[in-house]
Amino acid sequence: MKITYRKELEKAARRMILIHRTDTLIKLIIRTVLRCLKVSHAGIFLFDQQKKSYILTISQGKKGTKVPSGLIKISSESPLIKYFLTYHVPGHDNLFLITERIQSRLKSKKILESPEEKKLLEQLHQQLKVYKARIAIPIFFRDEFFGVFVLGEKKDKKSFGTDELTFLSILSSDVAMAIRNASLFEDLTIQLEKNQNLFVQTISTLAEAIEAKDHYTSGHTKRVVDYSMVIANQLRKMRKIRNWEEFTSHLRIAALLHDIGKIGVPEQILNKQESLNETEWASIKTHPLVGEGILSPIKDLNQVILGVKYHHERYDGEGYPQGLSGKKIPMIAAVISVADAYDAMTTERPYRKALTHDEAIAEIKKNSGVQFHPQVVNAFISAFSR
Amino acid sequence: MKITYRKELEKAARRMILIHRTDTLIKLIIRTVLRCLKVSHAGIFLFDQQKKSYILTISQGKKGTKVPSGLIKISSESPLIKYFLTYHVPGHDNLFLITERIQSRLKSKKILESPEEKKLLEQLHQQLKVYKARIAIPIFFRDEFFGVFVLGEKKDKKSFGTDELTFLSILSSDVAMAIRNASLFEDLTIQLEKNQNLFVQTISTLAEAIEAKDHYTSGHTKRVVDYSMVIANQLRKMRKIRNWEEFTSHLRIAALLHDIGKIGVPEQILNKQESLNETEWASIKTHPLVGEGILSPIKDLNQVILGVKYHHERYDGEGYPQGLSGKKIPMIAAVISVADAYDAMTTERPYRKALTHDEAIAEIKKNSGVQFHPQVVNAFISAFSR
Repeated sequence: MKITYRKELEKAARRMILIHRTDTLIKLIIRTVLRCLKVSHAGIFLFDQQKKSYILTISQGKKGTKVPSGLIKISSESPLIKYFLTYHVPGHDNLFLITERIQSRLKSKKILESPEEKKLLEQLHQQLKVYKARIAIPIFFRDEFFGVFVLGEKKDKKSFGTDELTFLSILSSDVAMAIRNASLFEDLTIQLEKNQNLFVQTISTLAEAIEAKDHYTSGHTKRVVDYSMVIANQLRKMRKIRNWEEFTSHLRIAALLHDIGKIGVPEQILNKQESLNETEWASIKTHPLVGEGILSPIKDLNQVILGVKYHHERYDGEGYPQGLSGKKIPMIAAVISVADAYDAMTTERPYRKALTHDEAIAEIKKNSGVQFHPQVVNAFISAFSR
Repeated sequence: MKITYRKELEKAARRMILIHRTDTLIKLIIRTVLRCLKVSHAGIFLFDQQKKSYILTISQGKKGTKVPSGLIKISSESPLIKYFLTYHVPGHDNLFLITERIQSRLKSKKILESPEEKKLLEQLHQQLKVYKARIAIPIFFRDEFFGVFVLGEKKDKKSFGTDELTFLSILSSDVAMAIRNASLFEDLTIQLEKNQNLFVQTISTLAEAIEAKDHYTSGHTKRVVDYSMVIANQLRKMRKIRNWEEFTSHLRIAALLHDIGKIGVPEQILNKQESLNETEWASIKTHPLVGEGILSPIKDLNQVILGVKYHHERYDGEGYPQGLSGKKIPMIAAVISVADAYDAMTTERPYRKALTHDEAIAEIKKNSGVQFHPQVVNAFISAFSR
């Protein structure tokens, strides 16, 4: 094999291993093929797990030649796929399909003994014509079939030589490995995302179920989460948060669980129609510490717990449970505090009417630096006055 | 470079990409080095994130020669590491360390101008002597430093030739890529595991917090989870479960949440000292359907929900909420049913004493095929009679 091919293959293999997105990978491969072989166009069909079919992920030609884009999705019953699935021998080198070979096979006498193969080859010949393809190379990793390369004719109209076929064969097996590697990465990443969603969903559901015990606050948790997210987003724009991604993910969980400690407060107090006496208030006020107690065994929630424990602290130090003041109150709690207060003000309670949006905003503004952290108030107001 | 080296490199690179465990990878690399180069021994120091130091992961020699294993952990202040961290020029080829080179550099006049380098080289020379090493090759991926290869002398006692050095240089850069790839995989896998643990822990915590409202059942949820896991394990041994991993992970969550619907039952009913009247029983019996209702918005929990919804069904069809019978009751629910019943029997309730272990086992046996699924009873009894 030509030394330039060998070098191109080494370079491609080294670049491919670093790419963990299938689509980026495919682009790199097609570019490599078009750079090394002077062909009219090159395309690649890849199996798509979700769609259970082979999709033409990319097709490029130097002079605008392409596999017609109307033919972008084929099933495993399509001749091109069926042929490789049927005639691939595990462990053997990749089986190529070259139009000349197909033609000569079709003309040979032997083919009369296998009418099924004959029929398949005829269909295949037709299919390759439609793609304007001269050669098709399967992409196998061990016995796993990922798809097919399809190449147009060479610009000098000559047949493909041994060197070129070897190049394509090695490239195709490297591509198979790289695709497998990339799809394992993608699978893990998708799984990770799925688990994170399941986690948030399940906690939301349980938090709402717990909240349902407190008849007056229906939907409160969900709204506090929403307002908290809006505030966090604004704080990011104002560049007040380092490591925003992490902060937001903790904040979301903390907002979901901020009232979890109310599970320790008797139902008759939570649902009382009249105003509460001192003992009853004291019971309500235990909820941030009860919440902390419930969650404290979970190490990975230590940042979340700060939000749960301190969301009733006040900037002037007059809050509970610890009377922290100013910047000693963790930001995560300061955000929930404003979101929580706004929602409490704007929903009706048995002992008072709801404030309007404008009245609540005015109230929060008035309490900036008194009850609330001024930065959070600024973020809240700029987000909600839009 | 010799064609055999080139082929070995290609082969190694292709095998390395498939390996996603750093330790397996290292073994493959050392074997490749020992096969291709006739050296007395080869070792590899790799950076360990947790330990914040470079660990001698493997050291092998054909005649039992090795880097002494007492020297297995070195810090970034160790001359061998410090040298590469200080003198590596990004983007340039890997810097080698060969004992001859160090000696001649130490004898040159230029070295007098850089006393710091002189001191470092002297220490380094000592260190390589201790390792019986003639050559050290750093493992860099771009500017990320992963560790160092250390090789003993060649068996023919000659110096390393250009071909051998080129071989080592390419190998080391391929190794760097493979290690990076493998550690990305390991990171993702660890993250996934961590998230799964956090998920289970958080649900456990919330389920226990909810359970705490029902004063008589302290620890019930946790015990039902434990018993369910024991039963599942036994069912696996008896080959009664397909896709056991998945089944168990659903079962664990279902067992944790099986009584979640009790959050809809008023506290005074849950905590009543006297026996319950019909209306109160009816309220208790809503909990499987309430549980289903709570969890139903979460698509990914559909298997889990079966356990929650049907854990009070009976094999004879006399259970609730739907009166399913026999094999129509999902296995996940049949397991929880036995675990739940055993725990209820063996703990004291206000209206009756606890049964002993033997009495409860006898009761469950008696109800095999009546209240309980016979396979689950078998699994339970063989696990618990041991």
